[in-house]
Amino acid sequence: MDQPPSTRFRERVRESFARQNVMRTIGAELTNVDYGMVEIEMPYSDALTQQHGFLHAGILSTVLDSACGYAALSVMPEESAVLTIEFKINLLSPGRGERFLFRGEVTKPGSNIIVSDGRAYAIGDGPAKLIASMTGTLMVVRGREGLDG
Amino acid sequence: MDQPPSTRFRERVRESFARQNVMRTIGAELTNVDYGMVEIEMPYSDALTQQHGFLHAGILSTVLDSACGYAALSVMPEESAVLTIEFKINLLSPGRGERFLFRGEVTKPGSNIIVSDGRAYAIGDGPAKLIASMTGTLMVVRGREGLDG
Amino acid sequence: MDQPPSTRFRERVRESFARQNVMRTIGAELTNVDYGMVEIEMPYSDALTQQHGFLHAGILSTVLDSACGYAALSVMPEESAVLTIEFKINLLSPGRGERFLFRGEVTKPGSNIIVSDGRAYAIGDGPAKLIASMTGTLMVVRGREGLDG
Amino acid sequence: MDQPPSTRFRERVRESFARQNVMRTIGAELTNVDYGMVEIEMPYSDALTQQHGFLHAGILSTVLDSACGYAALSVMPEESAVLTIEFKINLLSPGRGERFLFRGEVTKPGSNIIVSDGRAYAIGDGPAKLIASMTGTLMVVRGREGLDG
Repeated sequence: MDQPPSTRFRERVRESFARQNVMRTIGAELTNVDYGMVEIEMPYSDALTQQHGFLHAGILSTVLDSACGYAALSVMPEESAVLTIEFKINLLSPGRGERFLFRGEVTKPGSNIIVSDGRAYAIGDGPAKLIASMTGTLMVVRGREGLDG
Repeated sequence: MDQPPSTRFRERVRESFARQNVMRTIGAELTNVDYGMVEIEMPYSDALTQQHGFLHAGILSTVLDSACGYAALSVMPEESAVLTIEFKINLLSPGRGERFLFRGEVTKPGSNIIVSDGRAYAIGDGPAKLIASMTGTLMVVRGREGLDG
Repeated sequence: MDQPPSTRFRERVRESFARQNVMRTIGAELTNVDYGMVEIEMPYSDALTQQHGFLHAGILSTVLDSACGYAALSVMPEESAVLTIEFKINLLSPGRGERFLFRGEVTKPGSNIIVSDGRAYAIGDGPAKLIASMTGTLMVVRGREGLDG
Repeated sequence: MDQPPSTRFRERVRESFARQNVMRTIGAELTNVDYGMVEIEMPYSDALTQQHGFLHAGILSTVLDSACGYAALSVMPEESAVLTIEFKINLLSPGRGERFLFRGEVTKPGSNIIVSDGRAYAIGDGPAKLIASMTGTLMVVRGREGLDG
């Protein structure tokens, strides 16, 4: 991860994120793109809860998966796209809070397979609280028509 | 899993599902509740896609997690609630199709920890296509105020 | 998975298994190879226990990983090798018993990525008892010198 | 994780580790015990390889699971034992090298469920190389006869 293979990695991540309709639907915003690291934030929403009024684990997964995937995309060559092969998430504390921060980071770059780790935090008045952690395996997809970013 | 501990297991699952706001938001419906098995269906929605126009992996996770969790709740005693500790999902094929079926089944019941497996299928004109598989670990929560179902 | 791509798939699995020194060390034997399904058996051994006298979770993982990997290899073309990208295992019951059966099955074949599921059973006088389940992601490796099977 | 609940946490981990026969069998040694962090080391062994001559992924899992589990035990009260519910491991590079270092750390302590993360490194002449990462979910077991440590 010495050198970004694409000088346009920030634009590529932003353009792809803008095409993820689900991010708009749930109110998530891309707040930080670095080489191998991406941050997304979203407010609490009553429309996205499970039965106890917490953010549904799947919604935490949705944003963490995007954070992990875009961290991976940021280290890929220009003519490639990213696909999630699998991920695992541990729910460490209930998804309760005013705002949430999701950070994805590349743990192991690679020419075919990239592994990213993600962490979700609830943000309020006090210190940020770790509420979930993810490990995801991403695939570098090349030359498949219609797949970009 | 010989005998349902609660004769009201179908009602308990239906009542809890009805309180998951996120299910309404994404258009998911509970279509089948059996002892240790739950099915949820949803149509494709353009509002829930990732950058290539497929259903976002996190949305598949959201519904599969509910299916796995409610399969677990169906085998729990009445005075308990279900919480997801962790899950892993493998994305086997792109989330493309008209409708999707999500099935969760209890693999291992237990008094504290229950393990469920889930599978997601894309449904159209032809045969159902397996698009994702999940294994989830659920906790039986007792006597925690405000947590029910 | 209609047609075995290699008519030699049983020989390929057996030859590769025979090169896994760790299988000899822990006393595991390949007992069944079918197209997309592999079974391995091993006796309980006091040399492989954790602190409570049960078979260590990592030993169950070792055999399940081989079962999942060889199920995957059985559906690969001849000139390829199999590498495990990642797996997840749930320990459902203590690893106690006289003998253990491990079955790996291909859930999703693919030209680059194959997903297998595995289950471990304790075998004694009564019915087989499910003690662990695994999902593994395997990579099809081609043309890498020194890697075969 | 402010205060060790047991002043004997180092002894408890060492005593339990000494009862894990499999650690002796594979040549693993406990080299560091801190509050919430444990390190184990082992040399390469030709008896523990997969078909390409690398350390088998399951052996890496065995030691990482012990490292994660003992990190968890170090933060548990005295009268409890640790059991692994599940773990996921990503194999990042082949298990090749002279010696291997495995570090487990508690990510989220809890009175019933503890989550640990582990990393495995190959150690030789150059810098340590990250070869595997694990997330494990551990259960705090109390008052179950015959289970200690």
